[in-house]
Amino acid sequence: MSRINDSGNIGVMGTGQTKFGELWEESIETLAKQSIDESLKEAGLDISEIDLLVVGNKLVQQLEGRAHVGALIADEVGYEGPTIHVEGACASGGLAVRQGLLAIKAKTAKRVLVVGVEKMTDVSVGEIGRALMSAASEEEYWAGATFPSIYGMMARAYLEKYNLDEDVLAWPSVKNHDHGIMNPLAQYQKKIGFEKVNKSALVADPLRQLHCSPVSDGAAAVILSGVDKCEVEIIGSGHAGDSLGLHGRKKIWTMKATKTAFKKALNESGMSIEKIGLVELHDCFSITELLALEDMGFCKKGKAATMIKNARKDGYWKIEVEGNRGGLVVNSSGGLKACGHPVGATGVKQVVEVARQIGQKVDKTRRIKELEVGATHNVGGSGATVLVHVLKKSRN
Amino acid sequence: MSRINDSGNIGVMGTGQTKFGELWEESIETLAKQSIDESLKEAGLDISEIDLLVVGNKLVQQLEGRAHVGALIADEVGYEGPTIHVEGACASGGLAVRQGLLAIKAKTAKRVLVVGVEKMTDVSVGEIGRALMSAASEEEYWAGATFPSIYGMMARAYLEKYNLDEDVLAWPSVKNHDHGIMNPLAQYQKKIGFEKVNKSALVADPLRQLHCSPVSDGAAAVILSGVDKCEVEIIGSGHAGDSLGLHGRKKIWTMKATKTAFKKALNESGMSIEKIGLVELHDCFSITELLALEDMGFCKKGKAATMIKNARKDGYWKIEVEGNRGGLVVNSSGGLKACGHPVGATGVKQVVEVARQIGQKVDKTRRIKELEVGATHNVGGSGATVLVHVLKKSRN
Repeated sequence: MSRINDSGNIGVMGTGQTKFGELWEESIETLAKQSIDESLKEAGLDISEIDLLVVGNKLVQQLEGRAHVGALIADEVGYEGPTIHVEGACASGGLAVRQGLLAIKAKTAKRVLVVGVEKMTDVSVGEIGRALMSAASEEEYWAGATFPSIYGMMARAYLEKYNLDEDVLAWPSVKNHDHGIMNPLAQYQKKIGFEKVNKSALVADPLRQLHCSPVSDGAAAVILSGVDKCEVEIIGSGHAGDSLGLHGRKKIWTMKATKTAFKKALNESGMSIEKIGLVELHDCFSITELLALEDMGFCKKGKAATMIKNARKDGYWKIEVEGNRGGLVVNSSGGLKACGHPVGATGVKQVVEVARQIGQKVDKTRRIKELEVGATHNVGGSGATVLVHVLKKSRN
Repeated sequence: MSRINDSGNIGVMGTGQTKFGELWEESIETLAKQSIDESLKEAGLDISEIDLLVVGNKLVQQLEGRAHVGALIADEVGYEGPTIHVEGACASGGLAVRQGLLAIKAKTAKRVLVVGVEKMTDVSVGEIGRALMSAASEEEYWAGATFPSIYGMMARAYLEKYNLDEDVLAWPSVKNHDHGIMNPLAQYQKKIGFEKVNKSALVADPLRQLHCSPVSDGAAAVILSGVDKCEVEIIGSGHAGDSLGLHGRKKIWTMKATKTAFKKALNESGMSIEKIGLVELHDCFSITELLALEDMGFCKKGKAATMIKNARKDGYWKIEVEGNRGGLVVNSSGGLKACGHPVGATGVKQVVEVARQIGQKVDKTRRIKELEVGATHNVGGSGATVLVHVLKKSRN
């Protein structure tokens, strides 16, 4: 298998992101349009210069009974070219980015607009819970499990396996809220302390309310180009699967698809792990961040919480990783926990955040200095779909 | 833009198709599994030798509230690799085939399993009508239009533009039922005469019941390979869009996206149109077949019905096309009208039918002799998404 950029690097030409949050005045069309317009402006392109529109969305068919989602978003922005709608549960956004890359790599498109969008806050808690749970296996669904309970089982198994106290689960949440304070697009700009997380209501043992990402609305867009000089390039893409339900896995304190997807993306990129200065990873629950850091290889199994706890606080929490002098920032956006998790948008937002940080396009107050390489990590379900992308500053 | 098979041709290594019809004992998983198992058997592959699973499905999220559809089907067949679910209304199947081609062309996969599946007959007529209508524009939806009425308006405009009698709309249905009689996988094996079509109940003027494709269950699968010698190859792929609603189009007696997608696919294939001996095209309504034949260029505008009426009857209706000695068979499967239209499966079934006809793999009684080149044409909505593929007999 060759690198995704064999035929020349694929650049990030434009980025767009709406604020994430409870956006009751907005629809999926208006959210998508806002992020698309912003990305086109940054790229200096008209919509007619786009060869393909890829939409990542999980829920609009279920919650609003609407289909032909690619053409629906296209209609809103006056685009009449080919469209695709991809769905891979909460990894729909990362999957959309990958389809954009493949279309360019296959030489069927020069410039692809990828938009991830989700509108989750217009329905009841029961409805959204049921809709989200549809991404799990039928066995889990009919047994009455929820995603908090599925990840709760993974967390319990993890804590027992590595002989850890429950309270270590708080560290990703504490860090990500510290980061979210700096991000004006984040759903929450609010500090939460270690004690507060550990005293928040128990949702599904051992997961507490403040270990869980929120229900959110939002959209993010990227314009990928195979022909233009861009400041930031996507140099690796990995996509992996696993069994749909937890009961199909031998070990539930690790996520096999994270390992596989990260390895593929890193191999393609030609980078070594210590070059990565930022990773936007999928902290749908705090346990997911711990598993991801370990499964990608940033530390040994069982050590992620301690690694986060011991981070240098320098605006961002900078995690000490062997061989990485500048330190690793994890979830500068605030992650899913503080930035919010509009599920179809998340995977695209991760690419937007990393591209903007590398391109020094976020507000000065929250720029990661001298950042050259970053990665994204997007999970569908409890790990049956994982997408990883590696981005770097262009040498052009 | 280069040909999709620049880096070596992409072969059809295996095919599978369930019977189409009202299959009340089956679910989307069991249908998908049947077609997948058949395709793997034909290819001589184990599921573990597949690099990517692409699922085309439009309705399961809406009708059954289930998501993560790629992983859902994967789970049923014991596949743990990467999966994608694509949705493009009734062109979801063709879109899935194209994503499979792109993944191989982009060198991220060697062998891709593409499955299209739909389960439509378990809900009420009102529910399925509403779910289908979700692929149209909001303006059409809220005005109370249905797809029969949208295509009815196209048919009325077409008949007036070319000064034709309503009864010519019957010819695609009469022909496709004659073809369906020969296909054991077709939903209907029943002759219908010209008079009968024209006396069937009016659904949306001028469209009558027997101008309309049915509601169906079914699945179809193809295994695409970039590395194996195959008897049949996909040598061209075209994907085009248009405005979502009819009100966005200047002419509604033509389908712009059919023209664009067919031109792209034919250009890629390096073939001229008279080489095509079979086209499986999207006759969701009889008007759609007439528009498709004309927009692809098999005859002049307004002439398709006469062309079909004057076909030689030689088992199949063989249409006289300038430069094509053997004649053109249109919808040997029976088309959407007689074979059935499980929407997400249709675009994949078209590729299965053409590949099997070229590879001489259908029952002797219904083989098209000396067939070298065939094409498929799959429409989403009223033409906002169109996919065309061109297949040929391999020279290896």
